[in-house]
Amino acid sequence: MELVRIAVDGMGGDHGPSVVVPATLQALRENQDIHITLVGNQALLAAELAKCSSYDDTRINLKHAAEYVGMDELPTQALRYKKDSSMRVAIDLVKEGVAQACVSAGNTGALMAIAHFLLKNIPGVYRPAIVSMLPTSNGHFRMLDLGANVDSSASNLAQFAVMGSILATAVDNIKQPRVYLLNIGVELIKGNKQVKETAQLLATMKSLNYQGYIEGDDIYQGKADVVVCDGFVGNVALKTSEGAAKFMIDLIKNSFKRNLLTKAAGFIALPVLKSLTKKLNPAIYNGATLVGLQGVVIKSHGHADAYSFARAIHTAKVQVQKNVLHLISNEITHTLQSGILGND
Amino acid sequence: MELVRIAVDGMGGDHGPSVVVPATLQALRENQDIHITLVGNQALLAAELAKCSSYDDTRINLKHAAEYVGMDELPTQALRYKKDSSMRVAIDLVKEGVAQACVSAGNTGALMAIAHFLLKNIPGVYRPAIVSMLPTSNGHFRMLDLGANVDSSASNLAQFAVMGSILATAVDNIKQPRVYLLNIGVELIKGNKQVKETAQLLATMKSLNYQGYIEGDDIYQGKADVVVCDGFVGNVALKTSEGAAKFMIDLIKNSFKRNLLTKAAGFIALPVLKSLTKKLNPAIYNGATLVGLQGVVIKSHGHADAYSFARAIHTAKVQVQKNVLHLISNEITHTLQSGILGND
Repeated sequence: MELVRIAVDGMGGDHGPSVVVPATLQALRENQDIHITLVGNQALLAAELAKCSSYDDTRINLKHAAEYVGMDELPTQALRYKKDSSMRVAIDLVKEGVAQACVSAGNTGALMAIAHFLLKNIPGVYRPAIVSMLPTSNGHFRMLDLGANVDSSASNLAQFAVMGSILATAVDNIKQPRVYLLNIGVELIKGNKQVKETAQLLATMKSLNYQGYIEGDDIYQGKADVVVCDGFVGNVALKTSEGAAKFMIDLIKNSFKRNLLTKAAGFIALPVLKSLTKKLNPAIYNGATLVGLQGVVIKSHGHADAYSFARAIHTAKVQVQKNVLHLISNEITHTLQSGILGND
Repeated sequence: MELVRIAVDGMGGDHGPSVVVPATLQALRENQDIHITLVGNQALLAAELAKCSSYDDTRINLKHAAEYVGMDELPTQALRYKKDSSMRVAIDLVKEGVAQACVSAGNTGALMAIAHFLLKNIPGVYRPAIVSMLPTSNGHFRMLDLGANVDSSASNLAQFAVMGSILATAVDNIKQPRVYLLNIGVELIKGNKQVKETAQLLATMKSLNYQGYIEGDDIYQGKADVVVCDGFVGNVALKTSEGAAKFMIDLIKNSFKRNLLTKAAGFIALPVLKSLTKKLNPAIYNGATLVGLQGVVIKSHGHADAYSFARAIHTAKVQVQKNVLHLISNEITHTLQSGILGND
C-alpha cells in the first residue's frame, strides 16, 4: 500500500505540540495508509512523543524547524522574516514533493500567504479561497470563500463555484452538486453589483449545477451542496453563525441553572444536549481547505482538540487520494478554454 | 395628555388584518397615550374589529385603502402602480402630518421605496438605513444597515453610525453608545476597502464613541451598543444568525424525541427551553426602524403575531416621544458642517 505523506505543522494552534502530537498519533492509528512528518522544535516534539503510548514509528518522522508563526503575527511579517518557521518548512515539504499535503492549526492569514507564495496557484486559478464544511439537518454543505479574499470579482466567485463543486463531487461522490450564490433575497433584482454579475456568469456555465440565489437563513436547511460568496461576506456569515450558536448554548446552560427545579431538569436534560453538541461541534467538520493552490493545504481550527485536529489530517489524506488538485486543474483549464470567464 | 398618532398598515404581513387588528387593540390597551389610524380594506378591518372584545373607540379610526402591496411584489411595481395601497396611504398620513409614525408588516423593499419616495431623507442624510435591535446575554444592541443599501460608501456607513448612536442614546438613555464596525478581524490591516475607509472616518468623528472593529462571533457578547455594516453584509449576518439559531432549536427538539429516555428528559426540560425561547424570540425585539427619513417608519416582521406586532407599534411611539427625527437632523447637520464626511 502506498502511503499518503502528510506534513504537519507541529507548533501551530492555541495549544501547539501538546495537542498536535497526540492528534498526529491518533490520525496514524485511524489511517493506516498515511505517513506523517511532524515539523517543529525537535526537542519539544520529542518530549511530547515520549509522553504518548507506543506508536508505529515507521510512519512518523520529525523535522526540526527553529521558529514558529505566532497566532497574532501579521501574515506579511511571517512571510518575510520567519523563513524557518514550522509552518513554512511544512509547506516547503509539499513544494519539494516530499509530502503530498500539509496540515496546520496556525494563523490562517500567514498560512495562506506562505502557501500562496511557495506553492503558487493552480495554472488558471485567479485566486485561492478558503472552503469549509458546515452542518445541515441532514448532512453538510461546503461554503467558500470564508476569508481568503475581499472584494472578489464575478470571475473569482465563478471559479470558487467550480472548485467547491469539484470538492463536493470528488470527496462526497455527489454527481451534480447543487451550487447556490449567497444573496440577500432570492429575486433576480436583489443583491449588489458583484452578486448580480456572478449570477449571470454562473447561469452560463454548463458544467455547474447552478441553482440560483440562497439567503442566509436557508444555508443550514440542506438544500445546497455548495454556497458561494465573497470572502468578507462568508467570514462574517460563518462567525455570526458561531456567535449566535454560542449565545444560544450559553442561554440554555444558564436557564438550567436558575433554580432547584430547573437544576433538576438540567440534570436529566444536559446529557441529551451534550450528545447534541457533538453533532453541532465544528470538530467533526474541522479542516478548512485552502483551495486553488498547487498543493493540498488544510487549516485546522486554532482551538482544535486532538480529536478534531486528527479529522483535519484525515481530510488532507482524502483530498490527496481523490486527486482533487488534478480535477480542479482540469476543470479550470476547461472553463477558461470555454471563454466564459473574463480576466481576474 | 397629547396622544401620539400612529398610522398602521392593516393589510401587511403574512396574516394581514387577522393579526394586525388584534395587535392594534393590544397596543391601544398597553399604550394609553396613542391613537391609531388603521388603514386598509374597510370591510375586512371592520369585520376583524367586530370579532374583538370592547375597546376604546375614541383612540382608533379606520381609513379605507382599496389596494394592498403583496409580500412578493417588486418595490418598483408597488411604488408605480399601487397608489391606493394600505401601505402607501399609511405613509401618506405621516407625510400630511395626520400621523407622526407609521407601522407596517408588509414587504420591506416596497415599504422603503414608498417611504423614501413620499417622505424623503432628512436633509443631509445620504441614504436611509434599516436598523434593528438584537439580543445579547445582558441586553441588546442595534445593528445597521440590515439591507436598505448595498455597495455603501464610507460616508454612508459613517452616517449609519451617527444615526444608530442617536437611537441608542435617545431610546435607551445610553450616554456614549459604544459603536463598532463589523469586520473579518480586529487588526487594522483586515477588511475590504469600504471597511478600512470607514474606520478612518469614524476615528475622526469626535461625537461618536467609536471602539473599532468587531467580528461576527462577538456581536452577541454584549460589548457593542451599535454595530455598523453595509446592508448586504448586515442582511447576510442577520439571516445566517437566524438560520443557525433555528437549526439548533430543531436539533434540540429532535434530540429529545429520539427514545423513551430522551422523551422523558424532554418532558422536564422543554418548559425550561420554552421560557428561554421567549428571550430569544425576535418578537420582543420586533420593529426595525427605517432610519434617516423625514418620518418615523417601523417595519414589523412579516410573520409577527399580535404580541410582537404590538411591540412594533410601541417602538414607533417611543421614537416619536423621544424626538428621534429632530435629534438625527441636528447631529447630521452638525457632522456635515464639520466637513469630515465627503459627498455620498
